[in-house]
Amino acid sequence: MNYDVIIIGSGVAGLGAAIYAQRFDLKTLVIGDLPGGTITKTHLVENYPGFTSLTGMELGNNIAEHAKATGAELKMGSVKTAEQIEGGFKIMTGTNEEITAKAIIIATGTEHRKLGAPGEEEFNNKGVSYCATCDGPFFKGKDTVIIGGSDSAVKESLVLAEHAASVKIIYRKDKLRAEPINIRRMEAKENISVIYNTNVVEIMGEQMVTGVKLDTDEELAVGGVFIEIGRLPRAEVGKQLGCDIDEKTGEIVTDRYAKTNVPGVFAAGDVTNTEWKQAITGVAEGAHAANQVFEFISSQV
Amino acid sequence: MNYDVIIIGSGVAGLGAAIYAQRFDLKTLVIGDLPGGTITKTHLVENYPGFTSLTGMELGNNIAEHAKATGAELKMGSVKTAEQIEGGFKIMTGTNEEITAKAIIIATGTEHRKLGAPGEEEFNNKGVSYCATCDGPFFKGKDTVIIGGSDSAVKESLVLAEHAASVKIIYRKDKLRAEPINIRRMEAKENISVIYNTNVVEIMGEQMVTGVKLDTDEELAVGGVFIEIGRLPRAEVGKQLGCDIDEKTGEIVTDRYAKTNVPGVFAAGDVTNTEWKQAITGVAEGAHAANQVFEFISSQV
Repeated sequence: MNYDVIIIGSGVAGLGAAIYAQRFDLKTLVIGDLPGGTITKTHLVENYPGFTSLTGMELGNNIAEHAKATGAELKMGSVKTAEQIEGGFKIMTGTNEEITAKAIIIATGTEHRKLGAPGEEEFNNKGVSYCATCDGPFFKGKDTVIIGGSDSAVKESLVLAEHAASVKIIYRKDKLRAEPINIRRMEAKENISVIYNTNVVEIMGEQMVTGVKLDTDEELAVGGVFIEIGRLPRAEVGKQLGCDIDEKTGEIVTDRYAKTNVPGVFAAGDVTNTEWKQAITGVAEGAHAANQVFEFISSQV
Repeated sequence: MNYDVIIIGSGVAGLGAAIYAQRFDLKTLVIGDLPGGTITKTHLVENYPGFTSLTGMELGNNIAEHAKATGAELKMGSVKTAEQIEGGFKIMTGTNEEITAKAIIIATGTEHRKLGAPGEEEFNNKGVSYCATCDGPFFKGKDTVIIGGSDSAVKESLVLAEHAASVKIIYRKDKLRAEPINIRRMEAKENISVIYNTNVVEIMGEQMVTGVKLDTDEELAVGGVFIEIGRLPRAEVGKQLGCDIDEKTGEIVTDRYAKTNVPGVFAAGDVTNTEWKQAITGVAEGAHAANQVFEFISSQV
């Protein structure tokens, strides 16, 4: 076997697992496409205990640097397939490299949920964005909308309002699902408003986005459309390895110690069926997963 | 009710809960005897992801400062009794103050397990200690023993070896239960040795400790005895409130989201029956507990 454990995913859950795996003296490879993962797209993190306030990029970098300091190997890349082999597991990377290990930790996180409206694909990166923290500055002085009503959507509205002339949050329900502190901050911003009980049915434009059509038949002239309607688990590798998948959410089913139903395969972070997900809980699940790998490998000697 | 939630215990699990509870806009009181809790007694923490290396005191302080910055109220003190009342809970503090809240989070942690050998009480603080990180410097140039074989015992030996002339680890079993990285560090120290399969049956002394008697009938002349044989959960408040207690360990039984069997009572950190405990997992349990309190209170409106 090339490694004791391959950790698929380089977000904070995967990196947290790597820190613990290395401390257990396990030869550890982390493979992922973005060191630090999804949290790096968050403007401000004020709920990772120990850091009163820092950017998501800083938190992701801190944890990535920590993992490197323990000796974990970080490889940029993706995993196309994973399968069980005698004595362990084999993955094939996006560049057709085969790598083997005694155990696997899946920490692949999530990807943006698409709206599925006409114009969404056509104007992607031409006024359509999935990340105000990343793209906000390009919308200086423009009128914009954010589609969604979660805590993420409200937080993104705060970031966007620093750049855009106006931000309208368009939500299909009648009550935002955000932390009270973020709702208060949003309400204090004069250039943010909320349109409830409404869906965007089309994104219109020519070279660039020019507006959105609502299911109230109204049209809004806007230069930016931010889609924040949740995230989908990237559970493909888990499926290939035979992990139980939550039928409703598509997430990998784990117990409180990050075990899946497949011996030797563990999962942590946003890809799992943990009911409530935060950076801190994902990192802790990564730590549990590493501990379980240590127990699993020790028990086989 | 005086508060939405009273968090009993000011270690990192309780403080992690406080950070999240305040962000949920819950009026939060933390009551405990040591801000930062047990981790502050640890010399070096290298496994709280995000901080590559810092002292336990620094980590505890960072998290305590973070909790204060969110607006959580921290009160030094203890809780004598807790009981259910109409619409919530009432505690009585060590100074006979009555405080009420809609929900309770128990994060009371653990206390040192006693050896139970003759001389242990008599020479406490006269050569007998439960914390090399705290007391190590007082043993400069002395021969010492550490009783125990856990990761904590081995880590404490590393700290003590910086001060003491010699450190003998005395362990009742034939293999240390420590992280490999700490065993390697310990083996690299010339003034640390290990005595396996042996128990200390008596701590001897006059004004101060002079030696230990072993169950091999051997006596060792030492000036310091460090007892590191584990910790016991401080679950008294949980018992008073009717929480299920793990018969074997005495810990409060929780599910993966920090719920106990008693509605409105949650528990996090070392006092719970989580199988494997770290600072990072305790903090995450605290976050889950705060989220559950928010759900619990919201569902009652």
